Amino acid sequence: MLTISNRGNLMPPSPIRKLVPYAEAAKKRGIKVYHLNIGQPDIETPKPILDAVRNSDFKVLEYSHSAGNESYRRKLVTYYKTVGIDVDYNQIIITTGGSEAILFGMMACLDAGDEVIIPEPFYANYNGFAVAAGVTVVPVTSVIENGFGLPAMEEFEKKITPKTKAIIICNPNNPTGYLYTKEEMEALRQIILKYNLYLFSDEAYREFCYEGTHISAMHLNGVDENVILMDTISKRYSACGGRIGALVTKNKLVLDAVMKFAQARLSPPSFAQIAAEAAIDLPPDYFNTTKAEYKARRDLIVKRLVAMDGVVCPNPGGAFYVIAQLPVNDADIFCQWLLEKFEYQQQTVMLAPASGFYGTAGLGKKEVRLAYVLNLNDINAAMDCLEKALLVYSQNQP
Amino acid sequence: MLTISNRGNLMPPSPIRKLVPYAEAAKKRGIKVYHLNIGQPDIETPKPILDAVRNSDFKVLEYSHSAGNESYRRKLVTYYKTVGIDVDYNQIIITTGGSEAILFGMMACLDAGDEVIIPEPFYANYNGFAVAAGVTVVPVTSVIENGFGLPAMEEFEKKITPKTKAIIICNPNNPTGYLYTKEEMEALRQIILKYNLYLFSDEAYREFCYEGTHISAMHLNGVDENVILMDTISKRYSACGGRIGALVTKNKLVLDAVMKFAQARLSPPSFAQIAAEAAIDLPPDYFNTTKAEYKARRDLIVKRLVAMDGVVCPNPGGAFYVIAQLPVNDADIFCQWLLEKFEYQQQTVMLAPASGFYGTAGLGKKEVRLAYVLNLNDINAAMDCLEKALLVYSQNQP
Repeated sequence: MLTISNRGNLMPPSPIRKLVPYAEAAKKRGIKVYHLNIGQPDIETPKPILDAVRNSDFKVLEYSHSAGNESYRRKLVTYYKTVGIDVDYNQIIITTGGSEAILFGMMACLDAGDEVIIPEPFYANYNGFAVAAGVTVVPVTSVIENGFGLPAMEEFEKKITPKTKAIIICNPNNPTGYLYTKEEMEALRQIILKYNLYLFSDEAYREFCYEGTHISAMHLNGVDENVILMDTISKRYSACGGRIGALVTKNKLVLDAVMKFAQARLSPPSFAQIAAEAAIDLPPDYFNTTKAEYKARRDLIVKRLVAMDGVVCPNPGGAFYVIAQLPVNDADIFCQWLLEKFEYQQQTVMLAPASGFYGTAGLGKKEVRLAYVLNLNDINAAMDCLEKALLVYSQNQP
Repeated sequence: MLTISNRGNLMPPSPIRKLVPYAEAAKKRGIKVYHLNIGQPDIETPKPILDAVRNSDFKVLEYSHSAGNESYRRKLVTYYKTVGIDVDYNQIIITTGGSEAILFGMMACLDAGDEVIIPEPFYANYNGFAVAAGVTVVPVTSVIENGFGLPAMEEFEKKITPKTKAIIICNPNNPTGYLYTKEEMEALRQIILKYNLYLFSDEAYREFCYEGTHISAMHLNGVDENVILMDTISKRYSACGGRIGALVTKNKLVLDAVMKFAQARLSPPSFAQIAAEAAIDLPPDYFNTTKAEYKARRDLIVKRLVAMDGVVCPNPGGAFYVIAQLPVNDADIFCQWLLEKFEYQQQTVMLAPASGFYGTAGLGKKEVRLAYVLNLNDINAAMDCLEKALLVYSQNQP
């Protein structure tokens, strides 16, 4: 018998997309579905960056340099300066989305059987890249009671073994929206120094912080060799389909190793590198406008959620996600019920059950992630649906 | 000490790109370098497919479906029909270049420690993907004496062990240009059936066959479950920078497993999918024009090479590569010498030493790969350089 590999079997299906067939069936029944389940922003991609592609006039769609176009990498240096990150262009390797930066980082720094510690709940696709790389994900649990702050360092230390090679953080966090404080980042600095670990820092949502200041892992002192920044233009410029990210580090050995993986796949996409390079020339107030919009959405969605009976929802400092605890026994079943059985004025809402974001089985069963990627009117309409749904469900919950 | 992973250390640097610093130094000295070392065609990307991107009018650069846009996959079905391949759109997963199709195939079908047999010389990046996947490459040697025809089945059988899971072929072949015959494809069919192996068939150069007929692995009978087609638009439409490929198979379990890897990295690039979809509407004679150009180049480069003293060069049936055996002891040293020490009328030529395409150490030491991706005038000028260089070198060779 021809067989699938073990890793092919172990590979988790996307927890964000597994309810898609139920949503499609609902739409076929004429129901409008509000998609709060996935981080695809509705914000328009800035016209100048799309125009840069549309006005391009090359004749041959060539491979770029495996590390990305030098002109783009040099411009990225100026972007990073604006957020207090001081790097040279040759410390930047352009990747196919932030996804590839995560995969390359794991591949270059960790071997099969090595362990990486990740505060949970975490971005579910870290699991996928870990399975691809044969790496074991060891979760440390952060809790809704303190808004999903970084777990205490003792909790990390309990999980450290001789096989532990790295910690991954996402800051501000997907799925919790939590923005790590200066003190939390300092604690991470100390632990990676003490145990000689890599710190993979996924900063996809850096520009979307509503309270407090974003502290990049690249701001930490004395850990230049440890820190590997995973970045992407997907959320920053609402350009998810471009598939342009970056791996940034001052660790020369890591750069050299990652470069070999980059050469094997030849180059990152050429069209979107043109867009990404043009993005650096957007007016300085570009992020202010987007950020104000997201902040208004966050304020609304949190206000609506905490006003619902039995719902717990922290007010997160960044990104465009919240995790809410619902008065249900099993959010997976509830989210499916929303799509299969419920409607309010021919509308319903699609949420991501949070269980898929936990590494520890059984956690997050009452929690859902909501991505506030819809406009204020739609968020209100979606919250109307959810509020009604919780009332109906409470009377029928088994 | 923070360490690089074993696979990071094992990862081979690109043999095609390792001479780049010498080429750059030559250019700084004012020398014109003819690049026959890399498969970046000079053929213009068809204007209609670039225009499709330039005339696009979407507002948000969104993720596509993880398997690629359904509209594109449906159109690809019609392309495949024109080459006698009958598949359904849901048997096609769009990948980020052919590169990702190869990686996904290995990841989904093979585990670390499993073996894949590949006729050598082979596309060097198969090594890279094998290292990433922890898979062992087992070469079977094809030889210049018969133009790099498929090795006898007994040679394959000698290499088959309980860990053998797949055979990879590239047809027509990179780096040899060899086009497998119907009999050779039939022999492969029998061996994969007999030993229950996957056949990964890289058909990037399908449209460029100058003699004989291209037999796709998808044309073979009774091996639907075994065959996985790795494809790409890179060479077909001179669109290497798009990074659009495809994995095609009728094996449902493989599709399901690959889909999970595809979901983890979210989606293939959106801009280039627009170009790729437009490519299906190119006039039917598009390939004829390109093919005639490549054939003229092949005829010229082979004629020039075999006319040189001591040079052996088969006349390959497809792709845009030839492998030539040169009257030198070590082609690696010679290729570096061409860039460092030689010039003819302020010009020189960059070739790819063939040793990097062999899995067996010590093979191909006198051989080089030449990519005929330059116009006829430039090929003639490059061959003038090479002819002079071989004369000079023969008088100075250690």
